[in-house]
Amino acid sequence: MSKYRVLIDANDEKGLVHKVSTVFYNNDLNILSNSEFVDKENNKFFMRSVVDGDIDISKLRESLKEVLPKSAGIKLIEPKKKNIIIMATKELHALGDILIRHEADELDANILAVISNYDELESLVTRFNIPYITVSHEGLERIEHEQKIIECIDSFKDVDYIVLAKYMRILTPRFVETYEDKIINIHHSFLPAFIGANPYKQAYNRGVKIIGATAHFVNNNLDEGPIIAQEVIHVDHAYSWKDMQRSGRDVEKVVLSRALKLALEDRIFVYANKTVIF
Amino acid sequence: MSKYRVLIDANDEKGLVHKVSTVFYNNDLNILSNSEFVDKENNKFFMRSVVDGDIDISKLRESLKEVLPKSAGIKLIEPKKKNIIIMATKELHALGDILIRHEADELDANILAVISNYDELESLVTRFNIPYITVSHEGLERIEHEQKIIECIDSFKDVDYIVLAKYMRILTPRFVETYEDKIINIHHSFLPAFIGANPYKQAYNRGVKIIGATAHFVNNNLDEGPIIAQEVIHVDHAYSWKDMQRSGRDVEKVVLSRALKLALEDRIFVYANKTVIF
Amino acid sequence: MSKYRVLIDANDEKGLVHKVSTVFYNNDLNILSNSEFVDKENNKFFMRSVVDGDIDISKLRESLKEVLPKSAGIKLIEPKKKNIIIMATKELHALGDILIRHEADELDANILAVISNYDELESLVTRFNIPYITVSHEGLERIEHEQKIIECIDSFKDVDYIVLAKYMRILTPRFVETYEDKIINIHHSFLPAFIGANPYKQAYNRGVKIIGATAHFVNNNLDEGPIIAQEVIHVDHAYSWKDMQRSGRDVEKVVLSRALKLALEDRIFVYANKTVIF
Amino acid sequence: MSKYRVLIDANDEKGLVHKVSTVFYNNDLNILSNSEFVDKENNKFFMRSVVDGDIDISKLRESLKEVLPKSAGIKLIEPKKKNIIIMATKELHALGDILIRHEADELDANILAVISNYDELESLVTRFNIPYITVSHEGLERIEHEQKIIECIDSFKDVDYIVLAKYMRILTPRFVETYEDKIINIHHSFLPAFIGANPYKQAYNRGVKIIGATAHFVNNNLDEGPIIAQEVIHVDHAYSWKDMQRSGRDVEKVVLSRALKLALEDRIFVYANKTVIF
Repeated sequence: MSKYRVLIDANDEKGLVHKVSTVFYNNDLNILSNSEFVDKENNKFFMRSVVDGDIDISKLRESLKEVLPKSAGIKLIEPKKKNIIIMATKELHALGDILIRHEADELDANILAVISNYDELESLVTRFNIPYITVSHEGLERIEHEQKIIECIDSFKDVDYIVLAKYMRILTPRFVETYEDKIINIHHSFLPAFIGANPYKQAYNRGVKIIGATAHFVNNNLDEGPIIAQEVIHVDHAYSWKDMQRSGRDVEKVVLSRALKLALEDRIFVYANKTVIF
Repeated sequence: MSKYRVLIDANDEKGLVHKVSTVFYNNDLNILSNSEFVDKENNKFFMRSVVDGDIDISKLRESLKEVLPKSAGIKLIEPKKKNIIIMATKELHALGDILIRHEADELDANILAVISNYDELESLVTRFNIPYITVSHEGLERIEHEQKIIECIDSFKDVDYIVLAKYMRILTPRFVETYEDKIINIHHSFLPAFIGANPYKQAYNRGVKIIGATAHFVNNNLDEGPIIAQEVIHVDHAYSWKDMQRSGRDVEKVVLSRALKLALEDRIFVYANKTVIF
Repeated sequence: MSKYRVLIDANDEKGLVHKVSTVFYNNDLNILSNSEFVDKENNKFFMRSVVDGDIDISKLRESLKEVLPKSAGIKLIEPKKKNIIIMATKELHALGDILIRHEADELDANILAVISNYDELESLVTRFNIPYITVSHEGLERIEHEQKIIECIDSFKDVDYIVLAKYMRILTPRFVETYEDKIINIHHSFLPAFIGANPYKQAYNRGVKIIGATAHFVNNNLDEGPIIAQEVIHVDHAYSWKDMQRSGRDVEKVVLSRALKLALEDRIFVYANKTVIF
Repeated sequence: MSKYRVLIDANDEKGLVHKVSTVFYNNDLNILSNSEFVDKENNKFFMRSVVDGDIDISKLRESLKEVLPKSAGIKLIEPKKKNIIIMATKELHALGDILIRHEADELDANILAVISNYDELESLVTRFNIPYITVSHEGLERIEHEQKIIECIDSFKDVDYIVLAKYMRILTPRFVETYEDKIINIHHSFLPAFIGANPYKQAYNRGVKIIGATAHFVNNNLDEGPIIAQEVIHVDHAYSWKDMQRSGRDVEKVVLSRALKLALEDRIFVYANKTVIF
């Protein structure tokens, strides 16, 4: 007896739920949970089921292929720990939150390594018996520096997600394309407001009454990738931009950990620069 | 071509989604949206689908009965305006919010009448061309007063919901049973805290930092019916209990209107003194 | 015995609290509440006190002038109903919320009139015995239309605030300057995100997980005036932009009413395109 | 030049702000921030000022004593790291959050030690170079066990706060009285709802739509001490009580850290089983 997550996306047409659930039924599988969504504007169908039973995975895949449109995306995923690499710079709040959740067994993940362009966080990370790799950018062109990081990442096998836990350098299109839909970033602002440098200072100057943070997949439009999760807190005139930054950190870590959890549980579909999350 | 909401609850067993979606498919119906939930603890299955097509409603019902367990609940509901009666006392914020939403066509409902034990709100209600019926409790035993209200309600046909928009009198078991799962109340507290009289004063005395409101179906355990919606706001030491009450009104009206909307859209299942809401 | 709100803003210097509280003490006034804030960056001091006693208002003003820097702003305001004019177009949710609060005596305001460029809302407004004035923009240049509105507003005396309750036309600099710091707008977005037309469609296209609304004073930078209040709600992929708009309306009306209440209670200082709110 | 926090509570009378600010002025002190509150019901005055200047602390204290009522509480506190002891059992989320904040220098505190009745968390804590002391309760009467903890705590000097980061044992009145107003607890529920054992299971059974957590000072009414901070999150029918517990942990750690920060910054007054927080 085993359990699988079945993720299907397809152009919508009549009978998809019927067809998929019939496949599950004929394969003698029990549906533990089931979510569907049709984006009428784009005519796209999304379905995520968790099934259990005596699963013959290749037979199940074939049966689904038979009934679904050719263009359909079908993922059959066994729930198990995913491999993640965390990239950071010097700030420890978001990284620290992930380390503690990892320690508490809240995250279904192996942290393969933490990569940083500085060594400030080494002492913290190695305490948790997690490899810390400093890849300094000093004296390197951006492309050279990234090449070194890519080599570092690729020295690990089966990396599922790269988590940017306040990694403060801009990534090149090449890097982003190498790990498409695999890079999760926390942006220290309620996107799309305050894109770019020092959003807290921007927010302070604008006199906003709410600040927020956004976790998103990274693509080649800087700060413009598909949004996974957002959260906000109220602030007032008495907050300096440093106060906003301090308070913002609490939101950042909450949102990044929430997004990571959704990714680890295979709850996210990405399309049209947006996400469907079950 | 018409549209129907299909609500099914049943003891859980393998293949229910398959069976129901096969019925939809065989009846040539399109699934516009679909939600399922299995309460593993109670082994109960819940499903709400919106389907459209050329529906033969009695044939659809028969087909569903054939495939579902005998004990299953099956509701086929055509989306249309429901008939509601509002009961109030003297406070107008929650009632007013419903009147404005009704005027803005936000609520899929006909307000048949507003019934109150006082006439304070008559001027407001009649402006909206809605009948206002004062059923004074003065000089009447509780049971007599309620009997008059029941007669008043029953003079209207097909009443779907009775909305207690700050109706400040306790209802007897007889009244509650007469309109089981049809009475929606707003309780001016974050239940189950501060059950009973003057929850704002209780909250003030306890020095809480958050106050809330709860919309729930009314049953015979006073303040203990199935919860539909809850919301809260932050308060601090500077709030007197009157301030809490004032701020609480904003939460009350939001929560009551939200719960009413869920009911009007047939999104609520009630069981085990709880709700499943799709 | 009477009660006054004392609002002071000044360049910061040592002893301001001492000086002001000494004036209150020497005038035999009781401080009911007291708030101060120093913006260190701009070296500005803000203070709002509510005092009561046997107040000789011109003597109090003189005493304050004597101790405060010449450039200080001093406002002595007797708490009483302020006069407001509401401008709207066709949407009734924000206007309706204000009407109901006014009816419930929650707002310390006289609504002198509702002005709209359409007559859709006339039936609603006149029910509340409030004058409704249609100033159609049909066939008029923007400047001509505004001139008519200005004349209409100026036909009322002592207008304290002009509330744009979803008034959907852009105001010219001339209009804005005429009523500087007196125009409160509700922007149907979490500013500064989604400035401009149809923010809900923009938000939908961006795939945000939170939408919001912003109440602000209007100045000549369109959508860029000092922010008074903001609020948000969570949305997800299942929301069409129409759904976002519908849900957004609830936030809009809450935020606008909150901002209006702050203004009516003289709790807002405006400076540096921001607000200090006590 | 030094900075001090001045905390005053007194029976309210006319002129207190004047008197205190005059003392500051005469001592040539600059007021950096200032908050006041009068509880009219209890006729109590609260004031917290941060002042800087060339402070003669005993002279300042004397000057304040002279002008204030005899019964007034006067605290002059130099901002510096406070000494805290954390008590835990086996759960690490709340403790972990404090450790990470401490590491990030977000908390103005020295963690003198973590005391637990189990050794599960020892590996985590000692990594942070913080002493971990296991005081097992096995085979001990409650009073004996507590006596050992008291001795353990008292082996440290100048303990400012004892933080119960999910310490899962009930404390006796004797313990609580020993450290009156010094023990901060996180209760895994939105008090006063679900007092007592397994609040998440209680919440699940009640079918609530919101769960929360409460940080409070501990006194002899179990779960009934003065509330410092509360926060909530929305849940729905799909949450098992274990899911609620998991999600609740995020709220618990946020609220406990927030309360601790307020305490470390001397922002809390306790009276009438409530708190005033500036």
